[in-house]
Amino acid sequence: MLIVQKYGGTSVGSIERIQNVAAKVAKTRSEGNDVVVVVSAMSGETDRLVSLAHQITGTPSEREMDVLLSSGERVTIALLAIALNNLGYPARAFTGRQAGIVTNSVHTKARIERVNGERVLEALKHGVIPVIAGFQGISEGADVTTLGRGGSDLTAVAIAAAIKADLCDIYTDVDGVYTTDPNIVSEARKLDKISYEEMLELASLGAKVLQSRSVEYAAKYGVKLRVVSTFKDGSGTLLTEEDKDMEKVVVSGVTYDRNQAKVTIVGVPDKPGIAAKIFGTIANANIVVDMIIQNVSQESLTDISFTVPRSDINKTNEIMKSITKEIGAKEYELKEDIAKVSIVGVGMKSHSGVAAKMFTVLAGEGINIMMISTSEIKISCVIDAKYTELAVRTLHKAFELENSHKGT
Amino acid sequence: MLIVQKYGGTSVGSIERIQNVAAKVAKTRSEGNDVVVVVSAMSGETDRLVSLAHQITGTPSEREMDVLLSSGERVTIALLAIALNNLGYPARAFTGRQAGIVTNSVHTKARIERVNGERVLEALKHGVIPVIAGFQGISEGADVTTLGRGGSDLTAVAIAAAIKADLCDIYTDVDGVYTTDPNIVSEARKLDKISYEEMLELASLGAKVLQSRSVEYAAKYGVKLRVVSTFKDGSGTLLTEEDKDMEKVVVSGVTYDRNQAKVTIVGVPDKPGIAAKIFGTIANANIVVDMIIQNVSQESLTDISFTVPRSDINKTNEIMKSITKEIGAKEYELKEDIAKVSIVGVGMKSHSGVAAKMFTVLAGEGINIMMISTSEIKISCVIDAKYTELAVRTLHKAFELENSHKGT
Repeated sequence: MLIVQKYGGTSVGSIERIQNVAAKVAKTRSEGNDVVVVVSAMSGETDRLVSLAHQITGTPSEREMDVLLSSGERVTIALLAIALNNLGYPARAFTGRQAGIVTNSVHTKARIERVNGERVLEALKHGVIPVIAGFQGISEGADVTTLGRGGSDLTAVAIAAAIKADLCDIYTDVDGVYTTDPNIVSEARKLDKISYEEMLELASLGAKVLQSRSVEYAAKYGVKLRVVSTFKDGSGTLLTEEDKDMEKVVVSGVTYDRNQAKVTIVGVPDKPGIAAKIFGTIANANIVVDMIIQNVSQESLTDISFTVPRSDINKTNEIMKSITKEIGAKEYELKEDIAKVSIVGVGMKSHSGVAAKMFTVLAGEGINIMMISTSEIKISCVIDAKYTELAVRTLHKAFELENSHKGT
Repeated sequence: MLIVQKYGGTSVGSIERIQNVAAKVAKTRSEGNDVVVVVSAMSGETDRLVSLAHQITGTPSEREMDVLLSSGERVTIALLAIALNNLGYPARAFTGRQAGIVTNSVHTKARIERVNGERVLEALKHGVIPVIAGFQGISEGADVTTLGRGGSDLTAVAIAAAIKADLCDIYTDVDGVYTTDPNIVSEARKLDKISYEEMLELASLGAKVLQSRSVEYAAKYGVKLRVVSTFKDGSGTLLTEEDKDMEKVVVSGVTYDRNQAKVTIVGVPDKPGIAAKIFGTIANANIVVDMIIQNVSQESLTDISFTVPRSDINKTNEIMKSITKEIGAKEYELKEDIAKVSIVGVGMKSHSGVAAKMFTVLAGEGINIMMISTSEIKISCVIDAKYTELAVRTLHKAFELENSHKGT
């Protein structure tokens, strides 16, 4: 098999851990596989570099920040290649440029435009293990770029797609994707398999195992992606195309997000162009609106509710002050202590009554639902934040997630 | 003027010092000059990186070490560019590759093959200050290389040559080149000017201000090179072509080297091929021989003396054991506590009696001369190490270096 393995900052956080990673890579190689390794900067290193820049100014140039931050992974690739050579496994450090990662020139959050896997394949052909710097690439203008949050995962997936790897293993500090947060529900169960689509919903809903971009890229190019633990053995969770087994299971996971705030504008004149006015202004301020609900109009007045990231609450408040007057609405309310609780599953497509069951389960615990939004494979409810754990636990039990047989 | 300024590790050893450098660069720019900056890694950083690699193995691959070490300068160029931007001076960080430094592929001590200054000139044209990573380049095979000891100085000189700069300022922690070591002779005087040739002799004789390679490169391309202090104002020492002023001064400097050891082979059969045998064997062991003296033959037997770096004394001893037998010599002696004291000056070319004066001065202090070697602009004597300071002080005074008027 041709396997891409990606190790994050915690997995390479010390010389001892780098040697541990080298041993894992060597084992995979000695079992007859071809291996390509992608690594992040040693944990703490990126923070150290950012803090150096911030001692000079709070607003450093993004191009220069990319040069600064990309130095972190260079240290790790060199050290890991040295450790592999030391174990008798020929290895070679490749920067993002050398690995052929070409991006656009949007510094600090560049998008991959193409991957030229030739040099990596050439190394493999000579029995050499390529050790690639994650998170970084090079623009058409030959500038160093970085890929933003979760960038190293994306590098691994993109390389896997370019060299047509059989498997892309993302090594992390959790041992897979769970039916829900094990810190809240002790019965949470590790999933053996999950579809790209479900994982995308989970990622966008706040499960932090994989960034959406990596999952989207993997889905687009059909990369078999697996989440595994660096620190304990196990088969992890495999991301693949939907299959029949998956459809038998109605709900695959329960997730929650406590980083949203709710805005309600009361007494909005119900006439064309008002919603466009409100959300246009918010979008111009680079605030991402998640859910939007408009109540049924009464006496030509309506209420509009929506959610925004809690970190944007001050900016949102400023905008609301002026826009409420401008559109002639009565008033607005901000509510921060809310949570979004969601159930996700490809089986929903073929099973009816899932939403009703969710509402009934929540009502049974006396939990009031403030907002609802649904997609083909997801139902989300905004509730009072204090009920988060109760809602997650009750839904997990009601949909029998602790003992379903997904992917077996 | 178009000026290249190079700042070493101590000059950029902290955020405060980087900001100090930014202020100096900004000042030069605001005085109407175009400025290109070359920097080293922050002091201590290279040692930190080397020690990480050495925790894995004492013999890391040189290609990987270059990837590792070259990350150090990337941090400095980014931080200095950010600091300049913050002062309102547009600046851009360039890695060795981006600055067009193309080298051969001898990792850890690559030689510059050519410099493509286009991108640097393009930046200057747009009023941007290029901040270039010293010490690093890129091979034809697109691998990262480093230039070895004194590599950042070499980068500065090579860039200056490529963009035809009017001046290349090497900022360091001393304020110029002195007539001798001020730690030994308090009357040592800073030279305003010195010829490339003299500087080359000084550098190869152990004066540590500039590496020979940078001086050679500057001489070859006629780069006006100046050594100046980062920490105090002053005009430093300018390296240029020889001029008439210089020739008036017989001796420009006195220097010494205590890192040599002396080997004497006694009773060597005086026949063809013997010297080739001895020095061929030593060269094969990568030991660099400095001075060689052969005594007048007596009864077909001769004595041969030579000096080697003191760090190679054990290797040399092993070789001597076997070769003495092989060539049928009587015996050999090793002497470690020696020093080489030298006087340097382009004026020697046109003044006679300089050597005689040197020998007389040393004899006057009861200092025995063990070996002598001369070049057109230099006379070196090997003496007992314990007389080093006495010899340097006496020669400095005898040639009136404390009050000559060089370069005025």
